[in-house]
Amino acid sequence: MCLPGTVEAVRARADEEGPAPITRRAALAAAAGAVAVTALPAPTAHARRIPEKRTRDLTHVFTEGFPVYTFDPPRRRTLVTVEDNGFYSQEWTFGEHSGTHIDAPGHFIAGGRLSPELRPAELVAPLVVIDISTKAAADPDAAVTRQDVMSFERGHGRIPRGAIVAMYSGWESRIGDPAAYKNADGSGTYHFPGFGIDAVEWLLARRQIAGIGVDTMSLDPGRSQTFDVHLGLLGADRYGIENLANLGRIPARGATAFVGLIPWEEGSGGPARVLALW
Amino acid sequence: MCLPGTVEAVRARADEEGPAPITRRAALAAAAGAVAVTALPAPTAHARRIPEKRTRDLTHVFTEGFPVYTFDPPRRRTLVTVEDNGFYSQEWTFGEHSGTHIDAPGHFIAGGRLSPELRPAELVAPLVVIDISTKAAADPDAAVTRQDVMSFERGHGRIPRGAIVAMYSGWESRIGDPAAYKNADGSGTYHFPGFGIDAVEWLLARRQIAGIGVDTMSLDPGRSQTFDVHLGLLGADRYGIENLANLGRIPARGATAFVGLIPWEEGSGGPARVLALW
Repeated sequence: MCLPGTVEAVRARADEEGPAPITRRAALAAAAGAVAVTALPAPTAHARRIPEKRTRDLTHVFTEGFPVYTFDPPRRRTLVTVEDNGFYSQEWTFGEHSGTHIDAPGHFIAGGRLSPELRPAELVAPLVVIDISTKAAADPDAAVTRQDVMSFERGHGRIPRGAIVAMYSGWESRIGDPAAYKNADGSGTYHFPGFGIDAVEWLLARRQIAGIGVDTMSLDPGRSQTFDVHLGLLGADRYGIENLANLGRIPARGATAFVGLIPWEEGSGGPARVLALW
Repeated sequence: MCLPGTVEAVRARADEEGPAPITRRAALAAAAGAVAVTALPAPTAHARRIPEKRTRDLTHVFTEGFPVYTFDPPRRRTLVTVEDNGFYSQEWTFGEHSGTHIDAPGHFIAGGRLSPELRPAELVAPLVVIDISTKAAADPDAAVTRQDVMSFERGHGRIPRGAIVAMYSGWESRIGDPAAYKNADGSGTYHFPGFGIDAVEWLLARRQIAGIGVDTMSLDPGRSQTFDVHLGLLGADRYGIENLANLGRIPARGATAFVGLIPWEEGSGGPARVLALW
């Protein structure tokens, strides 16, 4: 696809413009025949108000072998390469509940809303983070309780309507080791933190939340066999986010979450890019 | 996974709380055994400033059979259903350049940045839309020229640094008909609008853009055999967005784009959720 002469023509144009500060990757790219580039400018007053905010990526890299609750982990293969074909692309195969991803209402509820039906107004929402990392460090079966929610509000004020309420348990430090992330006992039961149904029911009824998020692979604690939180939250037509990252590195209150769920056709949820801005 | 008694317990709790206004989907969900829910609240002053803005989804539903430039279209299969298994999930297989998606620098440039290396500050950016729909309606080979960019700036002011510059050609109306979207001639050459390299080089050099976007399946016009825009843009360490939707329904200037690229491991780009807020 890259006809002879094209890259040379681009390089000639680059040479006319002379050198400029470049990143390591861009340097590699330039060495491989691309044009020299200037560094991306810092946000300015022109960039309007959102980019002026602080930003944190709450998304894990979507990897081959990412730990999954059930079914096969994601897999990928190289379709073509720049060296052999003039351009590079991969193919992916995965279940929808892989990586940092959404549980849509239809994941557990027959007739519940599916991925394309979650509205942009639900996907851009205030984000609060309830930190249970201290108790989770001592007890892998720790859950966010209604008492934890009360304690959060005493410290940080009332949770806004339409918020996403996230649990920070510190569990993400295990993400590189699927066995440690699942933490199964001898009987195969998982042990990791999650939300308690008492907290979720209170948040649904009293704070009209848009959804909840966790830094583990399930909204319910790992040992749950009844999936009360999945049933209660998704049954209330709200959504969940699993496998979040970096929740310990944003304000407990004050950030806005962008939940970039791909609108997978008839999706039960699926991979999403989640960013926090404040 | 849904043990007998769990749904009943949830329903009993719902019954205690009594009925509430519900949506059609939620009504279906409730009928299927979930809790009754209140409608999602409208954004309020509590919801901070971003959700107060107007929002438009620039993303096509990611469908089985979505038109692709090359390789196989996306495919999906049902893994489990609520009826048979207590929960519902699908599995997807697709090439990275499917649906509304990103071209990362590494798509055409050996050593260029890959999906996880695009920074949040690049993915939340001012968005401008150059409308060439009138000339594209008359000529499927129409391109955004440097003259079109000049004309845009005369009408709407200077393009901000770090912006994403999108072409609105009106081509998205063909998305439901892959043959019409590709518009191949008898020799198999595609004919649809795209950017001209003169416009892109000027935008890179003079306006320090973050990237460009199109409502067609390629950054270059369909008939291109040399991929000048791919090579020039990605070679400059910037990214492209293909198959955007709804560009005719946002302001020509003043929106901020949230480009929710999944950080596909070693990805050449890949599916993204793109929202505009203003």
